Formats: sequence, structure tokens, C-alpha cells
Amino acid sequence: MRHFDLAVIGTGPAGQRAAIQAAKLGKKVCVIEKNRCVGGVAVNTGTIPSKALREAALHLTGRSMRGIFGDNYRVKRNITIADLISVSQHVIRREWSVIQDAFERNGVELIWGNAKFGDNNLLNVERDDESERLTADKFLVAIGTRPARPNSVPFDNVHVFTSDELLRLENLPKSMIVVGGGVIGTEYACIMATLGVKVTLIEGRNHLLGFLDQEISEAFQYHMRQAGITLRMGEKVSSIERTETGQANGAAVTAVLESGKRLQSQTLLYAVGRQGMCSKICLDKVGLEFDDRERLKVNENYQTTIPHIYAAGDVIGFPALASTAMEQGRLAVCHMFGAPTMSMPHLFPLGIYAVPEISMVGKTEEQLTDEAIPYEAGVSQYRELARGQLLGDETGMLKMLIHQETHEILGVHCLGTGSTELIHIGQVAMAFKAKVEFFVDNVFNHPTLAEAYKAAAHNGLNKLRHV
Amino acid sequence: MRHFDLAVIGTGPAGQRAAIQAAKLGKKVCVIEKNRCVGGVAVNTGTIPSKALREAALHLTGRSMRGIFGDNYRVKRNITIADLISVSQHVIRREWSVIQDAFERNGVELIWGNAKFGDNNLLNVERDDESERLTADKFLVAIGTRPARPNSVPFDNVHVFTSDELLRLENLPKSMIVVGGGVIGTEYACIMATLGVKVTLIEGRNHLLGFLDQEISEAFQYHMRQAGITLRMGEKVSSIERTETGQANGAAVTAVLESGKRLQSQTLLYAVGRQGMCSKICLDKVGLEFDDRERLKVNENYQTTIPHIYAAGDVIGFPALASTAMEQGRLAVCHMFGAPTMSMPHLFPLGIYAVPEISMVGKTEEQLTDEAIPYEAGVSQYRELARGQLLGDETGMLKMLIHQETHEILGVHCLGTGSTELIHIGQVAMAFKAKVEFFVDNVFNHPTLAEAYKAAAHNGLNKLRHV
Repeated sequence: MRHFDLAVIGTGPAGQRAAIQAAKLGKKVCVIEKNRCVGGVAVNTGTIPSKALREAALHLTGRSMRGIFGDNYRVKRNITIADLISVSQHVIRREWSVIQDAFERNGVELIWGNAKFGDNNLLNVERDDESERLTADKFLVAIGTRPARPNSVPFDNVHVFTSDELLRLENLPKSMIVVGGGVIGTEYACIMATLGVKVTLIEGRNHLLGFLDQEISEAFQYHMRQAGITLRMGEKVSSIERTETGQANGAAVTAVLESGKRLQSQTLLYAVGRQGMCSKICLDKVGLEFDDRERLKVNENYQTTIPHIYAAGDVIGFPALASTAMEQGRLAVCHMFGAPTMSMPHLFPLGIYAVPEISMVGKTEEQLTDEAIPYEAGVSQYRELARGQLLGDETGMLKMLIHQETHEILGVHCLGTGSTELIHIGQVAMAFKAKVEFFVDNVFNHPTLAEAYKAAAHNGLNKLRHV
Repeated sequence: MRHFDLAVIGTGPAGQRAAIQAAKLGKKVCVIEKNRCVGGVAVNTGTIPSKALREAALHLTGRSMRGIFGDNYRVKRNITIADLISVSQHVIRREWSVIQDAFERNGVELIWGNAKFGDNNLLNVERDDESERLTADKFLVAIGTRPARPNSVPFDNVHVFTSDELLRLENLPKSMIVVGGGVIGTEYACIMATLGVKVTLIEGRNHLLGFLDQEISEAFQYHMRQAGITLRMGEKVSSIERTETGQANGAAVTAVLESGKRLQSQTLLYAVGRQGMCSKICLDKVGLEFDDRERLKVNENYQTTIPHIYAAGDVIGFPALASTAMEQGRLAVCHMFGAPTMSMPHLFPLGIYAVPEISMVGKTEEQLTDEAIPYEAGVSQYRELARGQLLGDETGMLKMLIHQETHEILGVHCLGTGSTELIHIGQVAMAFKAKVEFFVDNVFNHPTLAEAYKAAAHNGLNKLRHV
């Protein structure tokens, strides 16, 4: 029976990063994957395929160049699913090889099969016709989540589906109802609208992506509506019904709202909540409990109630992003083996690959007001930057929140081209407690979108001077 | 006769920034422009038009998506000059309005005409049929440069031209010889090659862009050759001759090299050196001398030998970039009016909008070796980043130079998509003397190119551990 210092269950971002970190600390590590490919949801059905779809949609429709070539500019008139999927397949294959190569290079043992706890230090790994028993001192549960599929929803994977099936559609639908305005529902609503699909997004709360700064989420909702998306905010779905196909309007599904509205559409993407899979790995054998969505609770060191069993990634809940999952995996391993780290969780950026792209780091205006921290906002509009004009982005913006007294930067909020990249400039500055004057005193390449920091700094300082 | 605290000659980046900085300090400022439009070379014939041409070329040829859609992918088969110029015109008009709006908003007086010094504090501004005299306490000469046009070169602006005329060509040529491998020659060589023009670049030194880190410039030269550009390095042009038109091979110009080679081409871009225009502004009236290329010498505060006359931008020479010109203009004004600044000239980034894009901040490997500073290099290849794959950039790279003992970051060198934006992340880190561990301990959005910093940091730390 093989013995490892650490057994990681799952090869998504949390599992990958954890396994490699442990290997770098000189530990004997295995990582167990139940699917036929590495990478988890991030690589295979979530992060990467949706971003590939987004890139292909932005390019092929010409959306990204319309600010320059005009509102009717298109690169390709009849875009097929095949056009879109080819990009995704290409990237996914490449990621598989990058991940497996990283495991090999670092001496991480990749074991295929379903991991199930036998006792406190024992795992059974089940494959088609065989099983293997292995022991480890430490465990990391990084098994991710899958889309929730309530029984009340008549899923048929063609007209009514979750994000997993969306990527396997054979044709681009004419219309789509998206139920759920979280990150996944919002990103797909934007991508589908870019592709010319008539989209209606239904969200129970009054704002999409409630963690965003309100000015940004309002601007974002404005841009979604401008892109032709119908937002049904503060509305709840009471039932979803499959309609007879062959109707004149092509409708194959009806969503009935609690407010009495009946919305018809050719397809419906159900994107409310994600579900853990903790019941599959026999946690009862070690006495570890999970919640009703099969997720695990961890302490600040990513330890479950069983101290040698850690958990990271989507299985522990918000923010459930690939980036944070990687960091959780790394921190869990550093804690379990006593390696020092200098993590700055308050500076984790959030990136939403909607259209337009959104990213933030630090506090929102609402948080600062709640905490009674006096601030001023410096804003830069992309259309006033040469690079914004070159890219044809007329609507992008970057907002920097500045402490009124100390001039420290408290948060950066960005909506527009490249914002998931640009946010890191602010993140580094905040990590070193930079004051707004820093951006006035430093030279930026011209023309770049990064100049938005300088412009926002000037704008903020002007306001502060006239307070 | 009007009197100003500061009179700025020229509305390019240096002049703009200086005028607005002075206005913000409460000074009465005028800015004088001899052309019919504001913005100088940066907006009208240099920075912006060349970047617009580059964006349009990358998009319309499909070059930027070939990593994904295949080597033969094209968006548009027959690209005309009109396609390319429309982008440029759009952006230029927009920039004019942004600049003039900034002048108006800040109360900067914009005066059209040719400025000529009358005496130490007097300027004559000459227009078509009239002239105005004005006085000022301080002056900033920000009159820029124009391409050098030696008499020995048979310019006809159709077959033999400088970068000014290139933008006014009526047809895309089949072939082009580019004489001079500085920033301008290199950028245009890449853009033209992207558009399918057969390009030969002649440069007297053995490396293009001698200020770059050698690994980057070698990789860059490799990519240029891969893109079909012929590099004739270490070669000097002894003469340029117009050939009879109507030749079977379409050749209209011959460049004879000192080595005896005769190179034929349809067109020739002469991009060796730029020339100041100091002789036009009567500097003799104030006793100020300029060099044989009509450029001015300044001290570390951008003062000429006449203490109340400052100079900034291209007219003072290297690096002659829009970004540094702006900063020089700002610093000159802060010095003349005693306003404090915290500039970090050693952290000015350099950005080259070639194909691929190049950017750097801090020291090169060669400089560190010369200065006997022990370093290690951490490298990240874009193809190992999910975002690199999504963008189809298989060749991009980011290199971080790390002090072997202190682990401080000493330089960042980037070649590939978005490098002029990404470099600022390293720049901010360096400004705060960040150690390489910083990038390991911070979370980056996934998938982004910014993750190259994290990957390069891991790579560098691995090497340092095994030293």
C-alpha cells in the first residue's frame, strides 16, 4: 500500500496548486482525479471554455472593434457553434498538457479514479475494474461543485440545461432565458447576447453581482440593457415548463414568474446555485459533515473539523473563483506543513468575464460608507484615453477610492476592456499602502489603458483639493 | 500686450502636460501651436496614427487570432489604405477634442501661430496676416522633431519617404525597404509585414533597439524574421537611387549597401534620426544654442543654459517617447514654480508597439552584469498561461530579474500581447522595492496574462533555491 505525505482529491485549480506547493516543499504527494481529464470545472466546463467562448464571440462578431469600424461591423455573419467550440477545444487540450506536465515535472503522482475515505488516513481509489488503497498523513478535499439541478426544473439538456450542457449545444439558439444573475448566469447572458441571441436574465435580487461597487454594477446593467438583454430584476421563477415544440415563435420553454409574468423562449439556462459532491467520497467514514448543498466548512487555515483533512476551492463556497481556489490550495498546504506565507486576503481581486469585463480589488463605496471611512472617488473614462479610443472602448471606466485624509488607495473598480489585467496595478499599489500621489508621480506607457490610473488619480486629487 | 506666467511652445505631449500642470498650480499659461491642429507628432503623424494603423492591421489581417483560428486565418483579404486610415482619423479627431477640452477646462490659453523669441521674455507669434507679441516669465520649448531628410536621399514622398508621408500613401505597396532600426523603423517594419508587405530592414548596428535586454531583442528579431521580414544588420546604406518605374518586378527604388549589396523594392521608408526645428524660433535672440540636429541640452531640471527657458520632449533627445515627454513637461513646470514632486526616473517604462509588443522597466541583464549586481532571471512563457492560450499568443514571455541575495526585483522585460500594459504591475512593485516573494503571495485573476508575474516569480525562486 502506497503512503503519501498528502493526498489531494481533485485536479481543479485548488488541487493543482496544492499538490505542486506540497511537492515544492519536498513532500510526497498524490492527486486523484475521477474524470477522464485533469483540470476540473475550471478547465473543462467552466472558467476556460466560457472564456474561450467569450473571446471567440467578441472577435467573430466584431463586437470588440465596433467602436472603431462602426456599429454594424461584423467579422462573420453566420457564426456556428463549431466556430466557437474549436477555440475552446484547442485551449482545453493545451491546458491538460500544461497541468499534467507540471505534475510530472514536480513529481506529483496523478492517480485516476474515484476517491473514497476508508478511515482517517485511508483512501480507496476505485477505477473501472479495480481499486487501490492508499494512505496519507494529510488530505485536501478539492472536489469542486457541479450546477444545481433541482427536480422541479424539466431539464432535457437541449432546451432546458445548466452551464455544463450549454457548451454542448449543437445550434446557437434564437432566444435564451437565463435564470440566476450570479457570475455564471451573468457571463453567459452577456456572451449569448454578443452572439445575437435574445436574452432575458431573471434575478431575485435588485442588483446583479451584489458584491460589486454599486456604481459599477449599475453601469454594467445599463450596458447589458444597451446590448439588448432584458433584465427581470427582483423577480423569482415559480415554475419552468417545457412547451410543445413546433410553435410559430419557436418557443420551447416557459418560465412563470411569481409576479405572474409568463416568459417564453427557445432555451433556458438554469444558473442558480452550485452543488457540492461530498456525499460521493464517504466522509462519514471520518466523521466529517457537510451542509445541505454538500459543501464543507473550514477555518481560516482551510482545515475542516478533522484537523488533518483540509478543503479548498468551490467546495468551501464564496467566492468560488479559480484564482482564489489556487490560493486556498496553496495556503492549506503551507499551513499543514508549517511553511510561512504572507497572504493578503483583503486584496484578492475579483474578475468577472462579462461583456464588458469587470474587476475590483479592495473596498466598495458602500463598504467604506458603512465603515465610516471618509473617501473620495477618482474616475477615469476610457474614452478620454488615447488607448481607449484606439480600442474603440467608449464606455470603459476605472474608479479609484481614496482616503480623504491619508490619500491611501482603498479600492479600485474597473469596468471595460482589460480590466481583469489592469486591476493588478492597483492591487500591488494597495499592498504597499500607496497614496494616490504615487500615480501622479509615475510615468506610464502611452498609449495604454493603464494611464487610467494616472487620470483617475488626477481626478481624485482635484476633488480632494476642492473639498 | 498679454503677459503670462508661462508660455509653452508646442502642444505635443510635453507641452500639453506642462501647460495643464502650470494651470493646476494656479498660473496663467498660454500654449502656442504652429500647425492647424493640436497634439504635435504624437497625435498627428507619430504615436497615435502608427498605433491606429497597428491595431487595424492586427485586427483586419486576423494576425491577432491566428494562434486560435489557424495560420491562414484572415478577417479581410484585400485590405486597403482606406480601411486602415479610417481608424486613425477617428482617433485623431477624438484626441484633438480631448486636448482642446483639457486646455479649456483648465483655463490654458491656446494661441495659434509660429512663436519666435524677440528677447528674453518676449515672443512674437506670427499668423497668416498678423502677429501678436506676448511676454512671459518662464518658457517651455516643446517643439518636437521631424524626420531627418538628408539631401542625399531622393525623397519623392511616393516611393521614397519618411514616416510622415507613409501615412498618406494611396496604396499599400508590395515591398518596402526600411532604413533604420530605431523605434519608428522597427514599428513600421512590423506593421507593414503584418499587412503582407515584403519588408527588408537595414540597421547599422548588430541589434535592433539597443536599449532592450538582449534576450528580448534576440527573441524579437527571431519573431520578425518568422514574420517574413529580412533583417540586414550591421549594414550601412551608401546610396539610395530611384529606379525607372514600370520594371517587371515593380522596383522603383534601389538601396546600395556599403557591403556592395543592391536591394530593390517598390518603396523605401527612411527612418534614420529625427531633426529638431530650433532654428525656426529665433533662439539667437536669447543667446540659446542648439546642436547640429537642432536639439537643446538641458540639466536635470529640464532647464536650458538660459535658466527661465526650459525644454522637454523630443527636442531634448532620448528616449523621445510620448510618455517621457509628458513627465518631462510636468517636472519642468514643477521645478520652475517650486512645486514638490516625487519622480522615479529609473522606473520609467519603455514601450515599443512592434509586433509583438515590447515593454521594459528597470535594468537589463547586461546592465546588471556590468554593474556586478548578482541576479537570477525568472521567466514565464505565455503559452503556459491559460490566457495566453485563449489569446492564441504562443510566443509571448515575461522575464523578471531578481537580486540573488535580497530577492528584490531589478527589472521586468516583456515581449508579447499586452506587454505595454502589464509592465506597470512590475513597475509599481519595483517602486516599493518588492521582493519576488510578493508575486507568490498575491492572488491574480485567472485567466489573465498578469499571472505571468506569478509564474515568473515561481520560476525565479526555483532557480534561486537550486543555486
